[in-house]
Amino acid sequence: MILMSDVKLLPGETLEDLQFQGLRFIQKEGVLKFGTDAVILSSFIELRSGETLVDLCTGSGIIPVLLSGRVRAEILGVEIQSEAAALARRNAELNGLSNIRIVEGDLKDIKKHVRRADAVSVNPPYDKPGTGDVSENKSLRIARHEVACTLEDVVKSAAGILQDGGRFYMIHRAARLPEIIVKMKKYLLEPKALRPVARRAGEEPGYILIKGVKRGGEGLRFLPPLHLFEGGEYTPELKKIYHLEG
Amino acid sequence: MILMSDVKLLPGETLEDLQFQGLRFIQKEGVLKFGTDAVILSSFIELRSGETLVDLCTGSGIIPVLLSGRVRAEILGVEIQSEAAALARRNAELNGLSNIRIVEGDLKDIKKHVRRADAVSVNPPYDKPGTGDVSENKSLRIARHEVACTLEDVVKSAAGILQDGGRFYMIHRAARLPEIIVKMKKYLLEPKALRPVARRAGEEPGYILIKGVKRGGEGLRFLPPLHLFEGGEYTPELKKIYHLEG
Repeated sequence: MILMSDVKLLPGETLEDLQFQGLRFIQKEGVLKFGTDAVILSSFIELRSGETLVDLCTGSGIIPVLLSGRVRAEILGVEIQSEAAALARRNAELNGLSNIRIVEGDLKDIKKHVRRADAVSVNPPYDKPGTGDVSENKSLRIARHEVACTLEDVVKSAAGILQDGGRFYMIHRAARLPEIIVKMKKYLLEPKALRPVARRAGEEPGYILIKGVKRGGEGLRFLPPLHLFEGGEYTPELKKIYHLEG
Repeated sequence: MILMSDVKLLPGETLEDLQFQGLRFIQKEGVLKFGTDAVILSSFIELRSGETLVDLCTGSGIIPVLLSGRVRAEILGVEIQSEAAALARRNAELNGLSNIRIVEGDLKDIKKHVRRADAVSVNPPYDKPGTGDVSENKSLRIARHEVACTLEDVVKSAAGILQDGGRFYMIHRAARLPEIIVKMKKYLLEPKALRPVARRAGEEPGYILIKGVKRGGEGLRFLPPLHLFEGGEYTPELKKIYHLEG
């Protein structure tokens, strides 16, 4: 049992028990809260002990924290918004995760901060400016829309720090798959695995998980969909991802 | 009830009752027999009365014949192999389908035979030369492997006869999706619908159905998978496609 009361929270902040390896997580009003997409992406990432992963658009650091509960790797989180970056740093400290380093900076300048990574993950802004659900809050707008970086920036930055065989993992809108594939191929991140994510069996997937390998050979593994709900509850697979069983 | 005995068959030929609109179909030893892929592709094609469709790599003409059972459209089938093209012509005649025209020719010269189409369909060779199941029979090799035409030839030829808004429908190996999308985008056939085809729920799809629209706007509709089997039999959806029920 983890005591939640040992953490000093600022106004507008809440503390979540991630219910996994005793991990806890601070979220804040006005900073994009992590969603199922981040949790699913984290479960899709293959990472071995001792490897280096760079998490672009890390927000308040949910991917680095979740991955640290699974494997001892060096993780660099990159976030352009200072409020989210500060929160990510506190979330690493709160959990005593000295393997996580958070950089406040623009992913387009990623090479200033890291020369190479074994893998790159990213849960990027999903929509082009002016489309989708446009928030009046600037911080949320930057997190959700391609204001500070485009899909191409994300893919190019990732490819720039991966060596041949390096892996790229992303979750994105299914509707943007053609553009995603074209940009990945352009920067030599060959798409090697694709998994649709749908709310329920038989429904159209809203999201896709995609893995690319730098200069990988052609040949995509097209995976069966990940379904989130069945009847009124989570599917057994999602429960497992959320560590709600066993 | 259709009498099968009124058709003169040559050695090595068999006559199939397509069990749909009284349609029958001659197949021949050594010429690629149509499979579930052709039937599924035909059901994926949207075609309105009075429109013109060009079916590339038409083989013995299964797509034109199946479509003719559904809609009164002008259909041009293009086939490079003379034996298959002759069979396709006989299959159109056998069913009294004067709306079907079969051209023996190379799809790279498609503009010699037709200037424009409302839609193009294709069930192309799936594999690069030397990969997959290589047949000793030259006719089967050409039908299955990119010997006489490549994916790029297919997409380029289709795009060449489609006007803005014209539709392209293809079935292909799921593993080749990245290349398919890159070629479609290159020739301005924007991917607008994608449907994985898997043997059973929860299995990795081996094939994909894809629709492109010439100079269409970005935004892919990612459809739930089509499953072929459930328990020991066809799924209700596949039975419906095969007109086995109702």
